[in-house]
Amino acid sequence: MIRFDSDYIEGAHPSILDALVRTNFDQTAGYGEDPYCSQARETIRKHCLDETLGVQFLVGGTQTNVTVIDALLRSYQGVISADSGHINVHETGAPEATGHKVLAIPTNDGRLSLTQIKECFENHWNDHAHEHTVQPGMVYLSFPAENGLIYSKAELTEISEFCHKNGLYLFVDGARMGYGLQAEGCDVTLSDLARLCDAFYIGGTKVGALFGEAVVFSDKEMQRSFRYAIKQHGGMLAKGRLLGIQFQELMQGGDNCLYFTLAKHADTQAMRIRRAFEAKGIELWNNSVTNMQFPLLTKAQQEALGKEFIFEYWGKHDDERDIVRFCTSWATRTESVDALCSAIEKL
Amino acid sequence: MIRFDSDYIEGAHPSILDALVRTNFDQTAGYGEDPYCSQARETIRKHCLDETLGVQFLVGGTQTNVTVIDALLRSYQGVISADSGHINVHETGAPEATGHKVLAIPTNDGRLSLTQIKECFENHWNDHAHEHTVQPGMVYLSFPAENGLIYSKAELTEISEFCHKNGLYLFVDGARMGYGLQAEGCDVTLSDLARLCDAFYIGGTKVGALFGEAVVFSDKEMQRSFRYAIKQHGGMLAKGRLLGIQFQELMQGGDNCLYFTLAKHADTQAMRIRRAFEAKGIELWNNSVTNMQFPLLTKAQQEALGKEFIFEYWGKHDDERDIVRFCTSWATRTESVDALCSAIEKL
Amino acid sequence: MIRFDSDYIEGAHPSILDALVRTNFDQTAGYGEDPYCSQARETIRKHCLDETLGVQFLVGGTQTNVTVIDALLRSYQGVISADSGHINVHETGAPEATGHKVLAIPTNDGRLSLTQIKECFENHWNDHAHEHTVQPGMVYLSFPAENGLIYSKAELTEISEFCHKNGLYLFVDGARMGYGLQAEGCDVTLSDLARLCDAFYIGGTKVGALFGEAVVFSDKEMQRSFRYAIKQHGGMLAKGRLLGIQFQELMQGGDNCLYFTLAKHADTQAMRIRRAFEAKGIELWNNSVTNMQFPLLTKAQQEALGKEFIFEYWGKHDDERDIVRFCTSWATRTESVDALCSAIEKL
Amino acid sequence: MIRFDSDYIEGAHPSILDALVRTNFDQTAGYGEDPYCSQARETIRKHCLDETLGVQFLVGGTQTNVTVIDALLRSYQGVISADSGHINVHETGAPEATGHKVLAIPTNDGRLSLTQIKECFENHWNDHAHEHTVQPGMVYLSFPAENGLIYSKAELTEISEFCHKNGLYLFVDGARMGYGLQAEGCDVTLSDLARLCDAFYIGGTKVGALFGEAVVFSDKEMQRSFRYAIKQHGGMLAKGRLLGIQFQELMQGGDNCLYFTLAKHADTQAMRIRRAFEAKGIELWNNSVTNMQFPLLTKAQQEALGKEFIFEYWGKHDDERDIVRFCTSWATRTESVDALCSAIEKL
Repeated sequence: MIRFDSDYIEGAHPSILDALVRTNFDQTAGYGEDPYCSQARETIRKHCLDETLGVQFLVGGTQTNVTVIDALLRSYQGVISADSGHINVHETGAPEATGHKVLAIPTNDGRLSLTQIKECFENHWNDHAHEHTVQPGMVYLSFPAENGLIYSKAELTEISEFCHKNGLYLFVDGARMGYGLQAEGCDVTLSDLARLCDAFYIGGTKVGALFGEAVVFSDKEMQRSFRYAIKQHGGMLAKGRLLGIQFQELMQGGDNCLYFTLAKHADTQAMRIRRAFEAKGIELWNNSVTNMQFPLLTKAQQEALGKEFIFEYWGKHDDERDIVRFCTSWATRTESVDALCSAIEKL
Repeated sequence: MIRFDSDYIEGAHPSILDALVRTNFDQTAGYGEDPYCSQARETIRKHCLDETLGVQFLVGGTQTNVTVIDALLRSYQGVISADSGHINVHETGAPEATGHKVLAIPTNDGRLSLTQIKECFENHWNDHAHEHTVQPGMVYLSFPAENGLIYSKAELTEISEFCHKNGLYLFVDGARMGYGLQAEGCDVTLSDLARLCDAFYIGGTKVGALFGEAVVFSDKEMQRSFRYAIKQHGGMLAKGRLLGIQFQELMQGGDNCLYFTLAKHADTQAMRIRRAFEAKGIELWNNSVTNMQFPLLTKAQQEALGKEFIFEYWGKHDDERDIVRFCTSWATRTESVDALCSAIEKL
Repeated sequence: MIRFDSDYIEGAHPSILDALVRTNFDQTAGYGEDPYCSQARETIRKHCLDETLGVQFLVGGTQTNVTVIDALLRSYQGVISADSGHINVHETGAPEATGHKVLAIPTNDGRLSLTQIKECFENHWNDHAHEHTVQPGMVYLSFPAENGLIYSKAELTEISEFCHKNGLYLFVDGARMGYGLQAEGCDVTLSDLARLCDAFYIGGTKVGALFGEAVVFSDKEMQRSFRYAIKQHGGMLAKGRLLGIQFQELMQGGDNCLYFTLAKHADTQAMRIRRAFEAKGIELWNNSVTNMQFPLLTKAQQEALGKEFIFEYWGKHDDERDIVRFCTSWATRTESVDALCSAIEKL
Repeated sequence: MIRFDSDYIEGAHPSILDALVRTNFDQTAGYGEDPYCSQARETIRKHCLDETLGVQFLVGGTQTNVTVIDALLRSYQGVISADSGHINVHETGAPEATGHKVLAIPTNDGRLSLTQIKECFENHWNDHAHEHTVQPGMVYLSFPAENGLIYSKAELTEISEFCHKNGLYLFVDGARMGYGLQAEGCDVTLSDLARLCDAFYIGGTKVGALFGEAVVFSDKEMQRSFRYAIKQHGGMLAKGRLLGIQFQELMQGGDNCLYFTLAKHADTQAMRIRRAFEAKGIELWNNSVTNMQFPLLTKAQQEALGKEFIFEYWGKHDDERDIVRFCTSWATRTESVDALCSAIEKL
């Protein structure tokens, strides 16, 4: 069986393992205060074209989301999110466990629009009884969204402007950041994100690392205190250098860095899958240009493909068809996609 | 410079890195639901002589401590700990961040005695106004304690009996478990801990792994729901197999497993250091038999040793001397200890 | 202007003030451990036909809701509620501030049905990845609901049976309990609630008291520890007797107690208002039989009535009409309703 | 039996009950947005000589403490308190339940000194690993302290200056504020507190009101958002006017207001008790000048006085004597103190 059910089914890119082996017996201080982390921070700041940014490393996505949310928000504030946002549906209430309600907004396409954010914000403050409801303190977006769609630079810019004019933090979940940045038609860069957001992260776990998320932030209070928040939320890795080593390996080399190369590969393979379905006349649920593709398949089609491939049931679409997800990754072999495409052709 | 300042300054034992490299391109489900984790769970249950135990893997110690505490306790309960306990002094208030007060008790030697636990418990319930104070719900011990001392089987047994007669959970922090179990004179085994505690963990981070703690528990509600608690606290590793692979590597082989061998090595080297100080007539702060040794050194002695070695200042002892900590680990080279011992001799 | 905008715009029933004046200089212990509270507890247990019940007094509704939720639930559990439930929309995220996500379900008529509860529960446990979402631990209902509707004994019974077969607590918010119990067609009694729920409360604030909610519970752990939870949530009134005195005044006298009489009065006045609208051919939003009535009024009608009366805008209904709320209470004067009815007639 | 065991054993001063009766049928908006609260806010601002202050009313002390602490602090910050501080010993871990550790400091006399605060603060920031411990964010004092002692204006001024130079909030618990301000030798006024603190409160519960604490603050973020925090912590009273009415009754009349008169009475009676013990040659535990007096009594003396009077055991002092507490209040009758003094004389 060949797995296309997620983008974290293998280990790490071999050059990352090599780096870990190579540095294994170096002796360093713990908790991310080692030379490898310093170097990786520098490398990331260069991508962002801003030497003043804070950069810290955490192990996983949920941990990163709640640490950022809890570090930035006041106790009586909540976070505006698409109702399909990861923090709202797949984190076992982790934000709420830190005291912050997710202000979940239904969306048309899994992405928050300026109009929706504005409406949520204005409804709150126009309500005479606003203090009986949670004060919006932050906008949370995923780039790309849970359904693979991305935001344009223009969209992010107008959301950022609205947020900053109105005292809202803008936080971008980048668990699949690479796959978004390298997608066809994407006009957003790391330096755009660094400029437009108060905090965002570069997801390593799903893009070539064993694990690890690099949080980038400009917020002053986070610059002073984010490491407290990491420790308090159990996210401070004793051998922090493991994160620095991995991110240095991924991000060094500017626009040709491994992170971008791996992500590009996954996007390319995903678009091959997309086109195979399209060629077969099988409709896709949305216009994802990233590493997740969502064909609408009948039970018979699912059964046929299910003989060789593992993919994920995403939901019922209509009486005939379900939405299913095919995921590529940095580790997806071209031959696996060849096999899938030819199986699609034979449906 | 040779570092003796902590037991997490290197990476992992080479056979662990080998195992990660060897399995790197296997495709598995995420979140610890893979065959490697199943196998490692089985291996650990065998050490504990109990097939019914729950075993789950987390990344680090603070994360593990708060996840267990918050999973077991009711919202109005607190945890009894030595005031020098890690949860009380070095976790940035992580237990409190989940709502649970640490009921800190001053100790004579860094270890909680039955008498102290009893007194704390009885004082609470004898107070007419007990509901104005935090209800004790758990006893937290470290094995070994922060100062390297261990508990005897008799001590753990009487504490366990008191706890279970009085509705208190017993939870043992085993961040340095291996160094305790392999120490000279230790009469406690993993199966003793499994039998006496509601939950304890086998620390990997400090004993040969890249990272990872294996929590073992018999508590029924934890058996049903601990994975929720892990996820909610941001502790569920996407590529959970990384933990299973490491613990299988460490724990397979019964009494001759790598985990015990590595720990024994560290303890042996630590005792060499201890004896070097004793031979020189330099007093030690306590009777630690594990991988941490605490000589009382004058400033001059610290300066002399500080030319070649890094060690940790632990506190002022008297007008003349400070307590300093020398830490060995699975990775400590015999030649490094040779060098240290001969430097001690020359003091 | 005559106010019909809420049921807490006046002070307390005069006999309650009399009782407070009468007992003012008695000296008693604090925190609800006085003879007045004991007596009131006994009186409430008699209404419930169960001498073994726990009864505790708190000051207000939000405080009571979060204290009960947090006392009963495990840290990783959430509470199923109608999305229009008070805990979800008007408590500034108070349940989330204690770490518990509200699992909000859209409803047809503001009330949770067994079918919806079942679906939510089964969807959770059927999901392979259930531990990535919040574990349902409790069902929260309001009696009457925020829109004035009540549940029948049969409905409560089947919900209770489902909950208790499946390890869910059933908690009923009774901020307006009296108005529900005394409504036309209500077949539910306090003893039914005591038998069917794990916890519910008898709302005093909106039914004749200055303030105060009496929580009734059978749950064993709450019997042992609920007073800790009250204190921890800042809900333990120093002069706790103020609550006992008020509830004794309200609840003494069995079926003829002041609480029921006052509630009946409010319901009767509300039905007069309802009938005045119906007589005028003005549609009502729902079939509320309690103290809140929701006519659908045009802007012109709102303006006309707004000259003499204050009522509450509840939402837009259609292009022509809004939903507005008229609220009666224990303090509503018959003459005020006379005036309102004749104003309605003249619309 | 005559009770001297606490200052909340009676109801309220009669003129407060009169005011509640007088206004009972007025119809007002809820939640403290009524004319009575506005007026009381104005009255308190006048006492403080600052028209720009925020003033909000809560029901009780623990509620007020945690609401202020949680509103002001960041999630990773804790509050410095005397280890005998109410938040540390008698609030069932309420501050921790909001996520904030109490950084408890042993004191010489129950009061925090500048030296101790400074040491705690500097130890934190001088520690290289400071992010592994809780960041101090606030200093919490009680005026008077739990043992009846007060701070001088000079002491409060130097603490305030240190706090504000170092980014610490200063919060003063004033549950017994009146008894402090009216004590012999006190040189502190409400306007001093308003000028020196970020937040403090004027305790009503123990000084003549049925219940109620008036929080006064200058902090900008609290001015904007404190009402959210109140609601989120379950502290927003539906009939908020009950608090406004009481505080207006207590505070109107400038320096001759009822609040001061009642407090003065209690202090005077307490000093009579003190002098009776002194006349008898019975030592007092400390130099309290407020409404609590702590003689050191033998068991025989306790038994003798215990025949007619209820007082509180405070702790063991030495082999012969215990510390016991006698508490007067606004409601203490002169004749009761006459009786006590003559009983003391006869010991």
